[in-house]
Amino acid sequence: MQDIQSYISQNKDKFINELIELLKIPSVSADTAYSQDVLNTADAVLNALKKAGCDKVELCDTPGYPIVYGEKIIDPNLPTVLVYGHYDVQPADPIDLWNSPPFEPIIKKTDSHPEGAIYARGACDDKGQMYMHVKALEYMTSTGTLPCNVKFMIEGEEEVGSESLAWFVPRNKEKLANDVILISDTGMIANDIPSITTGLRGLSYVEVEVTGPNRDLHSGLYGGAVANPINVLTKMIASLHDENNHITIPGFYDNVEELSRDERDEMAKAPFSIEKYKNALAIDDVYGEKGYTTNERNSIRPTLDVNGIWGGYTGEGAKTVIASKAYAKISMRLVPNQDWKEITELFKKHFESIAPSGVKVVVKPHHGGQGYVTPIDNIGYQAASKAYEQTFGKKPIPQRSGGSIPIVALFEKELQSKTILMGFGLDSDAIHSPNEHFGVWNYLKGIETIPYFYKYFTELSE
Amino acid sequence: MQDIQSYISQNKDKFINELIELLKIPSVSADTAYSQDVLNTADAVLNALKKAGCDKVELCDTPGYPIVYGEKIIDPNLPTVLVYGHYDVQPADPIDLWNSPPFEPIIKKTDSHPEGAIYARGACDDKGQMYMHVKALEYMTSTGTLPCNVKFMIEGEEEVGSESLAWFVPRNKEKLANDVILISDTGMIANDIPSITTGLRGLSYVEVEVTGPNRDLHSGLYGGAVANPINVLTKMIASLHDENNHITIPGFYDNVEELSRDERDEMAKAPFSIEKYKNALAIDDVYGEKGYTTNERNSIRPTLDVNGIWGGYTGEGAKTVIASKAYAKISMRLVPNQDWKEITELFKKHFESIAPSGVKVVVKPHHGGQGYVTPIDNIGYQAASKAYEQTFGKKPIPQRSGGSIPIVALFEKELQSKTILMGFGLDSDAIHSPNEHFGVWNYLKGIETIPYFYKYFTELSE
Repeated sequence: MQDIQSYISQNKDKFINELIELLKIPSVSADTAYSQDVLNTADAVLNALKKAGCDKVELCDTPGYPIVYGEKIIDPNLPTVLVYGHYDVQPADPIDLWNSPPFEPIIKKTDSHPEGAIYARGACDDKGQMYMHVKALEYMTSTGTLPCNVKFMIEGEEEVGSESLAWFVPRNKEKLANDVILISDTGMIANDIPSITTGLRGLSYVEVEVTGPNRDLHSGLYGGAVANPINVLTKMIASLHDENNHITIPGFYDNVEELSRDERDEMAKAPFSIEKYKNALAIDDVYGEKGYTTNERNSIRPTLDVNGIWGGYTGEGAKTVIASKAYAKISMRLVPNQDWKEITELFKKHFESIAPSGVKVVVKPHHGGQGYVTPIDNIGYQAASKAYEQTFGKKPIPQRSGGSIPIVALFEKELQSKTILMGFGLDSDAIHSPNEHFGVWNYLKGIETIPYFYKYFTELSE
Repeated sequence: MQDIQSYISQNKDKFINELIELLKIPSVSADTAYSQDVLNTADAVLNALKKAGCDKVELCDTPGYPIVYGEKIIDPNLPTVLVYGHYDVQPADPIDLWNSPPFEPIIKKTDSHPEGAIYARGACDDKGQMYMHVKALEYMTSTGTLPCNVKFMIEGEEEVGSESLAWFVPRNKEKLANDVILISDTGMIANDIPSITTGLRGLSYVEVEVTGPNRDLHSGLYGGAVANPINVLTKMIASLHDENNHITIPGFYDNVEELSRDERDEMAKAPFSIEKYKNALAIDDVYGEKGYTTNERNSIRPTLDVNGIWGGYTGEGAKTVIASKAYAKISMRLVPNQDWKEITELFKKHFESIAPSGVKVVVKPHHGGQGYVTPIDNIGYQAASKAYEQTFGKKPIPQRSGGSIPIVALFEKELQSKTILMGFGLDSDAIHSPNEHFGVWNYLKGIETIPYFYKYFTELSE
């Protein structure tokens, strides 16, 4: 594979321009106004897979947006890699915080990306990272170096909960049969510190509604005499953490995997500057569960955060009203062994039980998913590690991520195979935020590294 | 004055139709889109005062909307009553909860108002109650029974904080010189239980802003590791009340007037059904400061309520975001002797002091006002009590209100006179809410009762 670097340098402009065309289509799955664009993106991905050398491509119908499927089977006796990615993107709001239009990609140089980064919604999450795999396949098919079979499954609802994928996978186990699943939808520590995500947190997302009086009341006439749903909601939410920032829901920690001191010491070796972290966020201090470091708090520990809260008068000026209702959206990040459905049930039971008389409380579960861990002695992990070592010149660090990709646990359950998370984005790439971008260097480095994964995975499978 | 009842029955339709015309003008002071309507309402009130027999009427310029002034001085040696009211109204939002358009008054019969009620924004607060005084003057001047001097001061910014009035009063002390101030901008217990408001609560209204990280963050990557401004805000607000629902701000209760057991026993005699109260609000229990009854909690005790709260993602579905900022609007109702500026300062100091590291907190004072009490041995109160007794057939009950009319304290300070609050509305009249209304019976009963106040006040002043 000594010619991959020259192949990339010859095709660099084409690779970038193709990605830019894909980023121009606003495939926002959360907003039905963009549904035709989402469908057009699926077509574009289908065509790209065909051109990259898949023998068979199809749009698979689902109750929602189609799943783009492609495959190249060179020998049924060789191992099969299943590549997963998504062609939908997060909404671009708040639009006015973007420095350039989210669906008009531009390339700009930054401190983290001296060779330039592509700015657009979806640049990193996940069009850019997904397209690396298409271009890596193109390299392998066009140079006759594809060492095993490959299947692609690219969905269009990742940003809205992957419901159609959860419907599709159990119905297509044979079609999707594989030896390892490969995903690039995570990040790495830095361009000179490659890392592989070995753990993901699970998620339980709920919405709560507190109702007091049957109508909005004048706070002068009723203030202090009836339960104010906003005051009550703040008390209820506040009580969900104790003074050490432990979560107080009974049973919440029962199945939490406690890492050994050795494992925690190993984790602590990853380069991390608390000062840089605080400066990047403009905060004077970090905050969190007592007894754990910042990197432990956001990876191996479960958390509970309010993602949104609203109630009463929120316009300009003052209105002396006691609202009839107050609401919050609350999500819990879970660690492996915590069952998200059980945690959702524990939350609901506890939250309803702490409601004082004078209010009614409703807890509506939104969605969730299981956490996941890849053992580093797995041959998939080892193949990925060798691939990074080959192209980055150093061994990658195994890293637990705080984020969630709920479908990874589903894959393991339905397809009985492990997922390898080879991410090439950086935390500073602003995924889900205005000015999302993806480094050109990272994009090309991904295309260069992926074929080595195929090579080493095939070798290690023998 | 035996002929006042026949005068009213002869003029009843005219009185109602005149009020309906006034209610058709949308004098929403909070919204500049209605500024011409607010000015047109001032003109209409000016003309009504002239027709009712004022010798002198004028629109007095202020930095904001004009104050309508009118007077009829019959003898400088006789006492002078200053009538205060307001011609502006609250915004009508939410419009879709009105059963008929807010500025197209209609009359409907209800359980509380078997003789019909006029439905329109401002019907009770305060156009209807203010206009009773204009019609009472008309009766007295047209029948030659006005026993003393009268001045009217009707403002157009009561619903937005009375700033221009606060500017006007100290500059016009001589013009406004009086022996008693008469206001109908409060309520009474029931049509068969007349009451006079003897106390008003003060107010301090603030807005708070909690800032955590400098941008919205992905809750998977940062959750549990940085202070979430919404979680922090709920903890801070929750801590403002202890387990007995006492307010925890140091110094908050220092100047609170503690009523004697006798005074509280006297208050407790007012008819009140806790079951009816709970049923009307559809709540299973009341809530509030330990050691006080519902009627004490909303009148003689200071309170702290969140009037609005917002932060993070509040749209449909789920977004796993940690917001950069969270906000709340908080108001405190104060009792006599609590200085609203001092309380605002105590709140600010305390709220800033309880902010944990990792967030920044800003407290912005909005506005406020002093509480007020009228002693019942005052001749103004006694004249009002006798007037109600004359027309309702029973002595009115002195009652502390939980609401605030900040300018009453200003009047006492600048004009050195006591204010008598003769309200004829009911709590169920939905002021500040959709479907505001004012009973026709109440409107006419007010017109009937007010001239007796003039008679008895003049007699008691001798």
